[in-house]
Amino acid sequence: MIRIGIVGYGNLGRGVECAIKNSPDMELVAVFTRRDPKSVSILTKGVPVVHSDLAEEWKDKIDVMILCGGSATDLPSMTPKFVEMFNVIDSFDTHAKIPTHFANVDEVAKRKHHLALIAVGWDPGMFSINRLYGNAILPQGKDYTFWGKGVSQGHSDAVRRIAGVKNAKQYTVPVKEALDAVRAGLDPELSTRQKHTRECFVVLDKNGDATAIENEIKTMPNYFADYDTTVHFISEEEFAKNHSGMAHGGFVIRSGKSGVSLENSHIIEYSLKLDSNPEFTTSVLVAYARAAYKMTKEGAYGCKTVLDVPPAYLSEKSGEELRASLL
Amino acid sequence: MIRIGIVGYGNLGRGVECAIKNSPDMELVAVFTRRDPKSVSILTKGVPVVHSDLAEEWKDKIDVMILCGGSATDLPSMTPKFVEMFNVIDSFDTHAKIPTHFANVDEVAKRKHHLALIAVGWDPGMFSINRLYGNAILPQGKDYTFWGKGVSQGHSDAVRRIAGVKNAKQYTVPVKEALDAVRAGLDPELSTRQKHTRECFVVLDKNGDATAIENEIKTMPNYFADYDTTVHFISEEEFAKNHSGMAHGGFVIRSGKSGVSLENSHIIEYSLKLDSNPEFTTSVLVAYARAAYKMTKEGAYGCKTVLDVPPAYLSEKSGEELRASLL
Repeated sequence: MIRIGIVGYGNLGRGVECAIKNSPDMELVAVFTRRDPKSVSILTKGVPVVHSDLAEEWKDKIDVMILCGGSATDLPSMTPKFVEMFNVIDSFDTHAKIPTHFANVDEVAKRKHHLALIAVGWDPGMFSINRLYGNAILPQGKDYTFWGKGVSQGHSDAVRRIAGVKNAKQYTVPVKEALDAVRAGLDPELSTRQKHTRECFVVLDKNGDATAIENEIKTMPNYFADYDTTVHFISEEEFAKNHSGMAHGGFVIRSGKSGVSLENSHIIEYSLKLDSNPEFTTSVLVAYARAAYKMTKEGAYGCKTVLDVPPAYLSEKSGEELRASLL
Repeated sequence: MIRIGIVGYGNLGRGVECAIKNSPDMELVAVFTRRDPKSVSILTKGVPVVHSDLAEEWKDKIDVMILCGGSATDLPSMTPKFVEMFNVIDSFDTHAKIPTHFANVDEVAKRKHHLALIAVGWDPGMFSINRLYGNAILPQGKDYTFWGKGVSQGHSDAVRRIAGVKNAKQYTVPVKEALDAVRAGLDPELSTRQKHTRECFVVLDKNGDATAIENEIKTMPNYFADYDTTVHFISEEEFAKNHSGMAHGGFVIRSGKSGVSLENSHIIEYSLKLDSNPEFTTSVLVAYARAAYKMTKEGAYGCKTVLDVPPAYLSEKSGEELRASLL
């Protein structure tokens, strides 16, 4: 049995806990939290909730620690700290800061001979793998990544910070015509505006001014100004009923050519349609926790990403079984 | 530069040659053939065509030999023979015989400390990787593989062997309603007949009896009896004009559940739409030849498959570049 620990018990932590239940070769050993452990009630009976400060006492009882913190403020310090004591895996997803995070984690991991798998999830993660495969197989070609339809947490937060907004959810929606053109092999050059639209559902405060708020959203730099944005003002009841989910998804497409004079076109498409973004992310995390465990058994250490992991390591089956059953 | 040799110069050999031209880190060193080398004219200027019997003289001049033989009669002996002398890669695609082929190749590869990557292509190959990722990430779920629309060489051959048939091409076509049901997360149980239809385009000999031939095709065990098959009789001109291509493709879909009581559904879909089946297969082969080279530089040997290869090894970029550009 692979002994797993969870650090942080929000949406991700709960998702990891559920995914472990579906993995017969893994057991949840403990959940670590910065809150008062007595205030945290988990789903798995008999598993202790422990304060993060006491994690070191669990050094020899956990094979892989799954770090379920946020990328903005938790993981930049959490991952280097925990890799001092454990093999770790995180879902760090701020693309631009991955090289820095990698370097920080790698330094500690190498010194401590622990393994860290960072940036595990679907983007970065499965989408990255598919971008890489597409580029390597069809070097003459173009990459396209579309996201959605799905909830963007960052954009929802940006709308919620506007004065007069009580609650808000933002959906990123891929533009169907753009997707169709890519799939048809037309290799279009697409602007930001042509690839995605943004749709906001907003609950107003008593004194919220709908016109002013709609204008503030649509002109917000970085978040909305470069997109065609639709704003719907709805009641709290409708918000609770129709906009509490965390669905997401997206598409990675490689359009490439082959042949003596590049006369043949090929389309490789990878897509995800997810009822629950955090539960899918944590399903990926748990599969890679298995891979991390196998890699440590072969002596691997230092910081790695999904790009460094052989697919077979994600499975509980042997190479022989995999070759016979699904190769 | 990675020094590549090609064994066999048919559709696959030519495809490998084209793909190497798009790989700035590779050079084609020689093409080996069982035919009279003087009778074989290749696309790349200045590269020698050599008789296969003389391959051993090239032992120290080639890093990876790409074996472009057929799975039925060539590769079962060709791969074990060439791995005596070289690191090799093949596209062996008879799924049921992979374990035997693997064992035969592995024995020699281990003894000679050479690396062999077998069963590289898209199915087996990229489709296998996607089946594996899907299973590992969503262990509670169902797998679906659909092929087409595309030309099945084996089925086309079977029709051509019927007396009275001058030429024939068979297309495997996925059933749209079945694909839609899978994508909608309905997890249907699909019979062979419900997943694919078969469409044949047949040119008759002077004395060919259309009614008898159509009946013989539709009732042919293993090949057609379990499918809804359509047979079109066409002229040689129409055949040459519309049915000389080698397009293919397909879909690998994992439909899975997550959550405390598996209440959330997820669909992972990987699809290919290929103008040229052999050229895409060889594009995959060439990317994996790069991976094989990198693995030998780290001391790897024995027989491996795509399931054993970290994605990053397919790229000519460094880990650092990959993390910064596409992770």
